[in-house]
Amino acid sequence: METWLIRNATIITMDDDRRVLSDSDLLIEGSEIKSLQPDGSETSSVPRDRVIDASGLVAIPGFVNAHTHCAMTLLRGYADDMPLMPWLEERVWPLEMKLGEEDVYWGTMLGIAEMIRAGVTCFNDMYHYFEAAARAAIDAGMRAVVSGVLLAFLPDADERLGRAIEFARDWKEKGDGLVVTMLGPHAPYTVPDHFLERVVEGAKSAGVGIHIHVSETEGEVADSQREFGQTPVERLDGLGLLDVHPVAAAHCVHLTDADIETLVEKRVGVCHCPGSNMKLASGAAPIPKLLAADAVVGLGTDGPASNNNLDMIEEVRLSALLHKLHSGDPTAVPAWQALEMGTRGSARALGIGDRVGQIKPGMKADVALIDFRQPHLFPRHDVVSHVVYAARAGDVHSVFINGRPVMLNRELQTLDESRIFQEVNDRLERLT
Amino acid sequence: METWLIRNATIITMDDDRRVLSDSDLLIEGSEIKSLQPDGSETSSVPRDRVIDASGLVAIPGFVNAHTHCAMTLLRGYADDMPLMPWLEERVWPLEMKLGEEDVYWGTMLGIAEMIRAGVTCFNDMYHYFEAAARAAIDAGMRAVVSGVLLAFLPDADERLGRAIEFARDWKEKGDGLVVTMLGPHAPYTVPDHFLERVVEGAKSAGVGIHIHVSETEGEVADSQREFGQTPVERLDGLGLLDVHPVAAAHCVHLTDADIETLVEKRVGVCHCPGSNMKLASGAAPIPKLLAADAVVGLGTDGPASNNNLDMIEEVRLSALLHKLHSGDPTAVPAWQALEMGTRGSARALGIGDRVGQIKPGMKADVALIDFRQPHLFPRHDVVSHVVYAARAGDVHSVFINGRPVMLNRELQTLDESRIFQEVNDRLERLT
Repeated sequence: METWLIRNATIITMDDDRRVLSDSDLLIEGSEIKSLQPDGSETSSVPRDRVIDASGLVAIPGFVNAHTHCAMTLLRGYADDMPLMPWLEERVWPLEMKLGEEDVYWGTMLGIAEMIRAGVTCFNDMYHYFEAAARAAIDAGMRAVVSGVLLAFLPDADERLGRAIEFARDWKEKGDGLVVTMLGPHAPYTVPDHFLERVVEGAKSAGVGIHIHVSETEGEVADSQREFGQTPVERLDGLGLLDVHPVAAAHCVHLTDADIETLVEKRVGVCHCPGSNMKLASGAAPIPKLLAADAVVGLGTDGPASNNNLDMIEEVRLSALLHKLHSGDPTAVPAWQALEMGTRGSARALGIGDRVGQIKPGMKADVALIDFRQPHLFPRHDVVSHVVYAARAGDVHSVFINGRPVMLNRELQTLDESRIFQEVNDRLERLT
Repeated sequence: METWLIRNATIITMDDDRRVLSDSDLLIEGSEIKSLQPDGSETSSVPRDRVIDASGLVAIPGFVNAHTHCAMTLLRGYADDMPLMPWLEERVWPLEMKLGEEDVYWGTMLGIAEMIRAGVTCFNDMYHYFEAAARAAIDAGMRAVVSGVLLAFLPDADERLGRAIEFARDWKEKGDGLVVTMLGPHAPYTVPDHFLERVVEGAKSAGVGIHIHVSETEGEVADSQREFGQTPVERLDGLGLLDVHPVAAAHCVHLTDADIETLVEKRVGVCHCPGSNMKLASGAAPIPKLLAADAVVGLGTDGPASNNNLDMIEEVRLSALLHKLHSGDPTAVPAWQALEMGTRGSARALGIGDRVGQIKPGMKADVALIDFRQPHLFPRHDVVSHVVYAARAGDVHSVFINGRPVMLNRELQTLDESRIFQEVNDRLERLT
């Protein structure tokens, strides 16, 4: 069992007491956090080359990206500043139609490299060729929640559903527990009732959760009201989908007060994507209301084609800024709450809050170390404020996932970046 | 005369034709950009140690931070998530009262180090101890527009105005043209008419521009209507202040259509600060309307105590995201326009658009090289989109100001960062 000692760190625990420890030692044993002690108490048994001097570094629980389509790195910057439907129909879908399984594998790898560099230790993915995404996560030593996207209008929708259920059952907890599976019905407006009912049955039989887009745009909610006489949340609830646990509901921008009550009551994980909602002009989700009602709220980047990165520090900051502006209240979503959403909140939204999202003995050792020895993070009046309002993804120095170092001193340990660049390049030359 | 050759770069020119050149050579002679040529045409006369291989790097005109209070780095994270008045009265002002000239010098130095690392090559500063800010800029080789803040309620307001006019006259174009001076009346609500009239006279006699906060909050505009029967823009116009050139008007969040017409007609430089406006819940400035009316619009960070950094890539991105959300139009403020605001637009707003803001022969060589050899900037479907939507300040690789390298391969060339950290630390220990 491998042991690592991170010495003399400032630790933002994200625990119930919101503790920030200074000059502390963090001991990792196997995949877990073994202990947190004042600096100097934990030096005996750990080999010298497994001791990290973290003076000047700040440890946080790794960010959990609660909603993305990781392989869409392949389409980053391929089309921007367009209305949603022409963007999808003229640019995104034609290119996506050509993608094969290995393209998705390498696109996912590119996204994982980006995320590890940004201190993200887990991502919740919904895309085509889900086995490729799961394989990429395991090969990279990355934690992932993986669901295949299910769209009822595809000609092989039934077959895909069968394969997705099989995958969810077989890959559940693969790779030393790194991979969690879900089913991924795309959205209420792309999946009819009879199909959603089969998804619910499938999820129950496989013992997995559901990842779905919900109430992302005003138009979607208006259409649902017109067609079903119900909001998307009401409709999903009526179909029993919200009784599955966990449900990771991406976006949730346009909610009624009754919708909010339902989401809270059913402990649905709201996966808020402020960057995507701003860039696509979808609207401002009612996050302060959801938080006040004690909803489970996490943060996600959405796909890198509509963001255009997988940077969770940015989402944390945007969540703090957007809701201050939107509510007109400069005290809305304070720094601590924003950081909590991007770590522990996301973990809870994905149903893995018992394992990750806090730095606490017994938790999996998913930890990011941020390098504070830089002018924009100085002076250190408040480290939590600095992570939220001043830091950037490139400040991440080292990252552990499941107790394993995946980046040390900005060097990736499990991935060959130049190979990833080459593979993506070669594939795009053929595709575009 | 020093000569530098940046070889094989991708160059975002920001010129009238919005050209992006690939595989190009950028020749710097003395303080100016001498030529832009296809790679390989410019190798003869430049010594080998002054040639930079910029394969994989993207050159942009250095960012111009059109509104800040740089030395407020000292208060970064000192208080957040508070309403404006308690924040100022209970936290900011009591600490600022204790600051001396050398504290401001070192606080400014810390901000300059941060800005150079972030590809910012010029900043427009308004603060106490303006000579210290100007000295810091010259010592660092940084371009700066400097004005002392003028607050009529201070006991020595008259004396300060006299000193500010003297400074503006004497320091105009100091340090090889690096420093431009202005007068800095704080805001219409802190400076009465008779004082503003003296500022206008002073600016005219010294031949300098004016830097002022305008219509930042709804309350400020309502108060102005109540007290003067005029919006702040109307009042400043009535006092002749907008006939001074240039006027750099920070924020301009709450404007009437008539205000917009006035700002356009008088060629006032609107210095938009989206990050600060979001964090302090001030509101969303009518940027799409201003741009459609052909206003001069630049971007600024505001002070690092209310932002909490001096990161212009973040402001560029926020300007693109905020106005899409606020207008409900995903095509609002496209990538190119956002980047233009943060470079050329800011330069025009400060009255130095004839010298900086574009990569073009004859312009001053203020250039940032961004390192694109990273997963979050790959693949390279669109380099402008990537700078705006995916890059971060830490991606800046090298920076030239006035033809002089101030950062090469992430190493600062003119500043001793550890000395700056030490000085700031020691001073804060005494102050707090």
